[in-house]
Parts: sequence; C-alpha cells; structure tokens
Amino acid sequence: MLSGYFPFWGASLLLCFAEAEPILFIPQIEPRDHIPTGLRVQEYPWGDLKCADPYSVLVAAVGNELLRAKAKNEQVGMNPSASRISLPIQAGEQIPIPEGFSGQLSALAGRSDAQSQAAFADLYLQKTPEEVDAIRCANRVANIGLQAFVDNSQPAATEADVAAAVESVIYRQISNDGIFHSRGWAMVQSGPNSAQAGRFNRSTGRRLENGDLVLIELATCVNGYWSDLTRTIAVGSPKPEAERILAIAKDAQQAAVDGVRPGVSGGDIDALARNKISAQGLASFFTHHTGHHVGFRYHDPGFLILPGESAKLEPGMVITIEPGVYVPECGAGARIEDNVLVTESGHETLSRVERSTP
Amino acid sequence: MLSGYFPFWGASLLLCFAEAEPILFIPQIEPRDHIPTGLRVQEYPWGDLKCADPYSVLVAAVGNELLRAKAKNEQVGMNPSASRISLPIQAGEQIPIPEGFSGQLSALAGRSDAQSQAAFADLYLQKTPEEVDAIRCANRVANIGLQAFVDNSQPAATEADVAAAVESVIYRQISNDGIFHSRGWAMVQSGPNSAQAGRFNRSTGRRLENGDLVLIELATCVNGYWSDLTRTIAVGSPKPEAERILAIAKDAQQAAVDGVRPGVSGGDIDALARNKISAQGLASFFTHHTGHHVGFRYHDPGFLILPGESAKLEPGMVITIEPGVYVPECGAGARIEDNVLVTESGHETLSRVERSTP
Repeated sequence: MLSGYFPFWGASLLLCFAEAEPILFIPQIEPRDHIPTGLRVQEYPWGDLKCADPYSVLVAAVGNELLRAKAKNEQVGMNPSASRISLPIQAGEQIPIPEGFSGQLSALAGRSDAQSQAAFADLYLQKTPEEVDAIRCANRVANIGLQAFVDNSQPAATEADVAAAVESVIYRQISNDGIFHSRGWAMVQSGPNSAQAGRFNRSTGRRLENGDLVLIELATCVNGYWSDLTRTIAVGSPKPEAERILAIAKDAQQAAVDGVRPGVSGGDIDALARNKISAQGLASFFTHHTGHHVGFRYHDPGFLILPGESAKLEPGMVITIEPGVYVPECGAGARIEDNVLVTESGHETLSRVERSTP
Repeated sequence: MLSGYFPFWGASLLLCFAEAEPILFIPQIEPRDHIPTGLRVQEYPWGDLKCADPYSVLVAAVGNELLRAKAKNEQVGMNPSASRISLPIQAGEQIPIPEGFSGQLSALAGRSDAQSQAAFADLYLQKTPEEVDAIRCANRVANIGLQAFVDNSQPAATEADVAAAVESVIYRQISNDGIFHSRGWAMVQSGPNSAQAGRFNRSTGRRLENGDLVLIELATCVNGYWSDLTRTIAVGSPKPEAERILAIAKDAQQAAVDGVRPGVSGGDIDALARNKISAQGLASFFTHHTGHHVGFRYHDPGFLILPGESAKLEPGMVITIEPGVYVPECGAGARIEDNVLVTESGHETLSRVERSTP
C-alpha cells in the first residue's frame, strides 16, 4: 500500500521516514522480481535453518535503522495489526508470527498504537490513482471469471464444478507480462442453496437444475489488490417468484450504485437499496449490510454501508454495493455486487469494464 | 479437533468441561449441516446487523455457562491462539476478531494461557484414529490432484495452467456424500524456477519445456483436515544433471521415510535424508528442514524434523518428510514430500494410497 509491494511469501515490514526513503524488510526467502525498483530493501533471516529467532533479528535491524536516522523514540509509531495490512499468499495459512513480536516492536515506538492505527485507517479509506488502476485490473480479471461462471452454469454441473472452472480461469491469468499473482475464491449456490447466501457462501455437490437461480460470490486477488463481486443468473426458465427476486435485487443494487457520490453517507446509500426491497414487502429478506470498503483486502476495514451510518463518501474511496434478497420459501436468493469508485463528480463502477460483462 | 467440527464460516469457540459434554458456540450465520450430531450448540449474533459487538455477547454467554457449571475461576483455562487452532475457509482472509476479545476471555480464566496452550500442544501432536482417517481422506483427494499434475505437465502449458488444473479437480471432489469442503493450493515450478523451490513456491506464466523438472507443492484441505505433498517429475528427457538431482532427492526422501518409527528423534530423521544428500556433495543445496507435523493445518505447530532436534516420534504423530535439492547452476530443483503416520511398529505413508500414485 505504501510501497507498491505485496508480501509474497513471508512477513515483511515497511519502515517509513518523514524525510527519507522507506526501507522494506523482507524474509531472505522472498522472491525479488516483483519488488518495485528503487525501493531500499533489507533481508532478515526468515527461512534460515541456522537462525532460531528471525523476528528478534528483524527487530534489532529496525532499531539500528531508527538509530541511524536519529529518530527519537517519541517520533516513532507502529501499526501492529499486521493481519489488517495484508496477507501472504501461502495456502490459507497465516504466518505464525510469535506473540511477543508486536511487543518487541512496540518497545521501539513512542507514539501509541491507536494514533498509528488511525493514520493507517486514513490511508486505507482513500485509494490513489495507481491503486485504483490495480483494483481495476483485479476487476478485469474477475470479469473473465464471471464469464466462465455464465458459460459453466448448465444443468447437471455441480456448484463445485462451476466454482472450480471460475477459479481455474482466474489462476491461468498469471503471465510473464505483468500479472505475477492471480487467485480467485469462488463460491456458487444454486436453487434452494441460493436462499442461504445471505448467511454464508459455499459450493456444494448439488447439481444445477433448469429454473434455478445461481449465485456466485467471487473474491479475486491480482498482484495483491482485490475485487469482491457477486452475480446471480437464472438457468433456463425460473419460476416467476424467482424472477421477481432477481429483478428486485438488481433494481435495489442499481439504485444504490446510482446514488454513490461524494458527501453522501453510508446510511443514505444503504437506504437507497433497502427502501427498494422494503417497498416490495421483502425487507426481512435483506439481512446484511449493503457494502464495505474494498481493494487492499477482500474486506477493507472502514465504515460500512449500513443503516444509520453517518460517515460520508469521499473521492478516492472504493466500496462494494451488494444488496440481496433471500427467500427460503421460494427456494431462491439473489445478490448483485459491484465495486464502485467515488469520483469528484459521482462514481465509476470498476467492475463493469466491458459491455458484455454479465 | 476436540469436537469433530470444522469452523466453516465464522469464529467458533468450544467450551470443554471435565465432566460434562462440551458446548460449541457458533456464529448465527454458520451452516448447520456439517456440525456433528449430538454436540451441544449455542449461536451468538455474529452476522446480525443489529448487534454491534457480537464478541461481547459471546464472552457473556461463555461466562453464563461457566456459572451454570459452577466452574471455579482457577479451574478455567483457555487457548487464545485461535489462529493456531484452525482457519475459516473464506477467501484468504482472517476473521477480524477484535484485539480485546482474548483479554475478555482471559478474564474468565484462572489458569495461565501457557498451561492451556501446553495442553493443546499435546493434543496437536498425536492424532486419534478418526483424525488419521480424516488426514488419509485429504491425502486421497490430494492424489487425485497429483494425477492431474502428471497429466497436465506437458510442453507449452504454463505453470499456472498446470496448477489451476490440479486445484480444479480437487475443488470438484466436493460432493453430497461426505466431502463438504475440498480445496487445494497448488504451486508449480518448472525448469530454472524449480531451483527456487527451496526458498519459495509459486506458479508463474513460464511455459513448460521438454527436459524440465517440474515441481508441485500442493496443500489440500478436505473437511478441515490437511495434506501437504510435493512431487517432482521430468517432462520429456531431462539432462543428466537434472536426472541426478531428482534421483538424489527421491533417495534421500525414501531413506528418511524408512527411518520413521517410535523413539527416533527429529534430528535422527533429518540426518537420514541430509546425509544422503551430503554424500553426493550437495549439502549446501538442501537449505530447509526435512519435515513438520501436519494434519490439523498445512503446517501444524510442534517440533520440526531438522538438525539437532531431540524430540522423539511417538505413535499417532503425522509428519511430513520433504527433503529437496535445488541447484540454480543446473536450472533444476527437486523435492519429494509425503505425509507419514508413526505407528506402534514403524510407519504408514498416508499419501501413497494407491500403487498408481505418482
């Protein structure tokens, strides 16, 4: 976020100075070919069999650099919420950072964590043009996945089959000209399972049937930046109730997207979607928030788009708009989700990159 | 681990009593169909828009149950290292458990965290027969993925293509008769990239060529239990140096597997592999440990199989054996990894379930 670097394999630490170039500390095992040129880099011995405690070595190195920069203790802040900053891309597993590490780092710092975290929170909420481009790229790749979702949502395919096809095409976007990391997490719910999508998302072995609504929840990470999309489509000829649910979800989502512009509050945006659903007598079937910040993570921290939220949208923010309607009695649920950039004059839907987008 | 339950969607908490049935606290949005029958379950309002602080509700509910059970403060222990216990299966993202939650829970407990964590560590190291069966199942699914690895490792395919095919077939093992969750994380490295596999694993857009060594690192999670496998194969006709590297890795790996039995130390097992590689003059090209515990996670905590480790293997432990040889000058690296159960009389290789296994 601050360096243009995405930690690929191990825990990394960025040391930022007020008046000097930042230093990036990386594990010695880290790949180097995706580190931005010009960034000062120091390695620490994570992955070295002979080093029993690489984190203490890292803390000492950070301390040395603070000394060298003549930083006074009270001028040093830190953000220990590593899990909020990013995530390495190993198989669904956190790096086991020892519990004492945060305390060791804190001992170097004078400013309270709360202050530092507030500073980071601001950085999270507003994306730079370069970051927006990276989120746009993630959405472009995600749309390739969504096309596979449409193509593979055929009767007799299982939910897992469809989801696997989507993830597969996203993974295959890795190339040697610019995309060094591309991963999708697709969860597909069909027919009666779509009515559960307001509570959880997962793919089962259920086979799609003619008339089903089919919903995909798709997280996509490209080069460290995220897209979070949902689409719902019908297989064959759905029942009128299912068609109505899908139409209401689309209508509510479009109303909220249309309302995105600077100065509007999270609560206002939520109301635009929620009122559309309530007007159809379905308020109790839209049980979750309307959206959240997105881009550095699948779910960025920051205020939510939900009832009563007074925080206001500002240019540079990227949010999801994702209302849904889930009616178990009809065996049907629908949600549409886009990623929307707040611009100076209104908004741009980053996830609708081409006319043919589903 | 203690309940037979794998947290699917949100943060769950298991309350165990010395003389009563455990209680599982789950988020209200959690799917119910994979929770073991007979388990006492209480939900808490995670996912409820109207509840701003579900974790405090959870802590209060745990406190109530401790009161009801007349548990005295000093009899209560807790393991706050939630990240070590399991991981939900959302898209590569941790559940944002608030930092104060662990402290709130600790306030209910009298025993030190260290004591409780030691008790959990013991549970981690030795798997029950039911747990071994679950790990065996994960390995059976992983082997389906490895077959796809062999089938797809053809000239002109990219590393990402091969990895995507492996993950896809693993995802598609989800069915309505027993496998409710099946995910693979495959990383494929070919030719010169295979020589980097001792430092990191990833798939790039490089196209496989005749003569390449191709290495796959494959993590597989089935119903919450994990397999961790590596295979290396040759495409077409490799150069003699590459063939030699692969042969030495295989030989070292087999030597270490053959040595697995109760009473042997981690250091002894490591030496069996490392000495084979050293005897070929390649000691400096095997830079990592020989193995780790596996099954509840891709990497279970516990002692490692590495030089000088005196902790001894015991029946019920499941470890990886994964020596490797990576020689950049030859543009070739090889690692073979199996998951091995320590039995009363020796060992069983859980990841070699069929004769046709690659």
